[in-house]
Amino acid sequence: MNDVLSHIQSNSERYLRELGDLLAIPSVSTNPENAADVRRCAEWVAAQLRAIGLEDVRVMPTPGHPVVYGAWLGAPGKPTLLIYGHYDVQPPEPLDLWTSPPFQATVRGDNLYARGASDDKGQFFIHLKSVEAFLKTTGTLPINVKFLIEGEEEIGSDHLEDFIRAEADLLKADLVMISDSSMFARDVPSICYGLRGLTYMQLDLVGPNHDLHSGSFGGSVLNPIQALAEIIAQLHDRNGRVTIPGFYDDVRPLTRKEREAYKKLPWSDRSYARDLGVRALYGEKGFTTLERLWARPTLECNGIWGGFTGEGAKTVLPSAASAKISMRLVPDQTTRKINKLFTRHLKKITPPGVTMTVRSLHGGEPAITPIDSPGVRAAISALEKGFGKKPLYQRDGGSIPIVVQFKKILKIDTVLLGFGLPDENAHAPDEFLNLSNFYGGIRTSAHFMDELPSFMQKSRA
Amino acid sequence: MNDVLSHIQSNSERYLRELGDLLAIPSVSTNPENAADVRRCAEWVAAQLRAIGLEDVRVMPTPGHPVVYGAWLGAPGKPTLLIYGHYDVQPPEPLDLWTSPPFQATVRGDNLYARGASDDKGQFFIHLKSVEAFLKTTGTLPINVKFLIEGEEEIGSDHLEDFIRAEADLLKADLVMISDSSMFARDVPSICYGLRGLTYMQLDLVGPNHDLHSGSFGGSVLNPIQALAEIIAQLHDRNGRVTIPGFYDDVRPLTRKEREAYKKLPWSDRSYARDLGVRALYGEKGFTTLERLWARPTLECNGIWGGFTGEGAKTVLPSAASAKISMRLVPDQTTRKINKLFTRHLKKITPPGVTMTVRSLHGGEPAITPIDSPGVRAAISALEKGFGKKPLYQRDGGSIPIVVQFKKILKIDTVLLGFGLPDENAHAPDEFLNLSNFYGGIRTSAHFMDELPSFMQKSRA
Repeated sequence: MNDVLSHIQSNSERYLRELGDLLAIPSVSTNPENAADVRRCAEWVAAQLRAIGLEDVRVMPTPGHPVVYGAWLGAPGKPTLLIYGHYDVQPPEPLDLWTSPPFQATVRGDNLYARGASDDKGQFFIHLKSVEAFLKTTGTLPINVKFLIEGEEEIGSDHLEDFIRAEADLLKADLVMISDSSMFARDVPSICYGLRGLTYMQLDLVGPNHDLHSGSFGGSVLNPIQALAEIIAQLHDRNGRVTIPGFYDDVRPLTRKEREAYKKLPWSDRSYARDLGVRALYGEKGFTTLERLWARPTLECNGIWGGFTGEGAKTVLPSAASAKISMRLVPDQTTRKINKLFTRHLKKITPPGVTMTVRSLHGGEPAITPIDSPGVRAAISALEKGFGKKPLYQRDGGSIPIVVQFKKILKIDTVLLGFGLPDENAHAPDEFLNLSNFYGGIRTSAHFMDELPSFMQKSRA
Repeated sequence: MNDVLSHIQSNSERYLRELGDLLAIPSVSTNPENAADVRRCAEWVAAQLRAIGLEDVRVMPTPGHPVVYGAWLGAPGKPTLLIYGHYDVQPPEPLDLWTSPPFQATVRGDNLYARGASDDKGQFFIHLKSVEAFLKTTGTLPINVKFLIEGEEEIGSDHLEDFIRAEADLLKADLVMISDSSMFARDVPSICYGLRGLTYMQLDLVGPNHDLHSGSFGGSVLNPIQALAEIIAQLHDRNGRVTIPGFYDDVRPLTRKEREAYKKLPWSDRSYARDLGVRALYGEKGFTTLERLWARPTLECNGIWGGFTGEGAKTVLPSAASAKISMRLVPDQTTRKINKLFTRHLKKITPPGVTMTVRSLHGGEPAITPIDSPGVRAAISALEKGFGKKPLYQRDGGSIPIVVQFKKILKIDTVLLGFGLPDENAHAPDEFLNLSNFYGGIRTSAHFMDELPSFMQKSRA
């Protein structure tokens, strides 16, 4: 291990240059005009997998963007780790809010700024470099590894489930490793044992059959923007609770142990509010902020639009208004049931004078990984060595639907080892990856591979 | 008068040809590429004013498109009528929805189709022809007339208020006549005695200082879209009334006479709703649809936007959300007071967790011309003679800021004598002017000039 760790130490500048090349590719999966960039990014990742010494590297087609696969299976009898990541990124807009260009990786202070720096190019790249360090120094790995790096995570991973089903043999493994999340705080390494699910809906309201003049018609028909606002306003009560009947029925209550574990985490509502620039926090009464973020379901408007939105004044009473509304789910809620409850309730509260269409755009189930599973325990040990600190337990408010699919199709658990930071601006301008976490992550990944076999053996014994 | 009326009768075909020439000029004021056409149209109108016998005809420059002025002041001691109109038109697009070319006046049935046929070339041309009929037959007019035909009405009449101020002496008159609106229905000649005012605001809400990931942050801060929706939802109560304290304080109540007058108008809520494609109408309880449209103030969202509004699903908890909200005002509300009440109330109901900015974008006062004023009474009498039918009283829900400017600067009332029809497609493809209304309008205009002096005298006596 010492050779491996000193190899990592002495190659750190090269790692940064290589990551910069990866971040320079605008692999925005949602934009049709970036399709060639997405493809080029997949080819770049495949070339990297070959360069670090993996075998059987392939760019595998899907009906959408391709999946990159590569493996090293030279340790028969040892555990096989499937490392998942995604090479696609969110759109960079609004461009004018970036301090440096989004596709030109720029170091400022201890951070590397670029779209995808943290989500997720910088994070899956960590595992490439630990594998490389083993293979370049020892010529072998303590475990078998398989990489599955997809290109559609930011648009819902629509084709991944079919891909996993079709390639279940190729992907066979004992454990999945995903680094696509954040540690709890700077200098607070943590292991994430739970994720929220997501269901994302679009509402389209139509009132009059064409845009009307607000002078000639105002006062006679229900304005769809007003109707939409009244509907959205009804979805939370005064205590910040979601009002959809049955919404909380399947929520698994927080255990006392969990509530106590969260209290150990360094947290200040006041500085959290100050960092976000708000004078007050908001959420469901009766729960702490961390409890609301991790263990309670939420409902958010992700977008709204209708009528005239340009400069100046246009006196229109619009024909239509729309909103995107998503709900974060926690165990044991399911997207299927929540979609049904949501749609039924929305239809019920739609006033006469407008008609509403509700569409489900995308979703994923919530997940929890047992704290005492060998993968989580190996990760705790590796984190402590990689960062020199005892890690803490946390959940994450976000969703990684793939975790649910791995469990459902491949029957394996996932270890979530996040090296991002909570303020890293994923999905926003000035996204960054902290460089201490980047290098600590590479060390942690190496320790994890080194120690996983013994934890797996103990668990089997 | 008989000579005048038979002159009108025998020259009807020539009027149509001349109007066709005027309609052939694409004087689209908003298009820079039509600037020369707009200028040519002004010259055409000036030449017409000279041809019918007016004096002191001028094309007067403004910082935008020119104003055409002409007068006949040969009746000292008699009232002076200022006739306002506009020679600019809306863009004709979308062209493929026109049955005949927009700038080639075409008669189909009893209608003349062309851009500007009704709004407003065909309507101000009516008064030119009645003046011509007097001057060609009797060599004189019963009153003094001044024409003020502007070229920027369709782009907001931005330079007209300054023009009226600067030329207040030249424009001095006893009454303004505007024909730039519609009669209530086909075969229902009507006089419009009231207009709503308008105040148009923009709200900008800011929550967190940047866009957040809705998974990582959902449940901890107030979403500005939700806050905006809750604010908008609070602006109307269950009875469709605006909830801003003091909003209705200065509303002049409908008189019994007005409510009865509106009941005489042919109206069906059911067919109105069917035409608009809605299953139910909406508005302030306790008032009929026409009362709500004309005599009650309203509050409408003209536009709303925030967060992700593209295709698909982006899991953003946005930093900001905005809306455009306008209020139609009725006498004796004022934009100044309503803006103050609106802003104060909005600030008051803005929840902690977001900050709100309120901006006034534009506004104009409501107007009412007394039903028993000599101008309105002369118009009623003239309409009855011109159309052979007893005219009805109406108001209009829209705003004509110029009416307020004439009152404010020149201290004179305006008579609104609309010869258009509600379905005339102003601002849309296949705009038309009904030819019976065109000829009835010329007769009405002649009767009006003939009778105005005696109504003015009675009123003075």
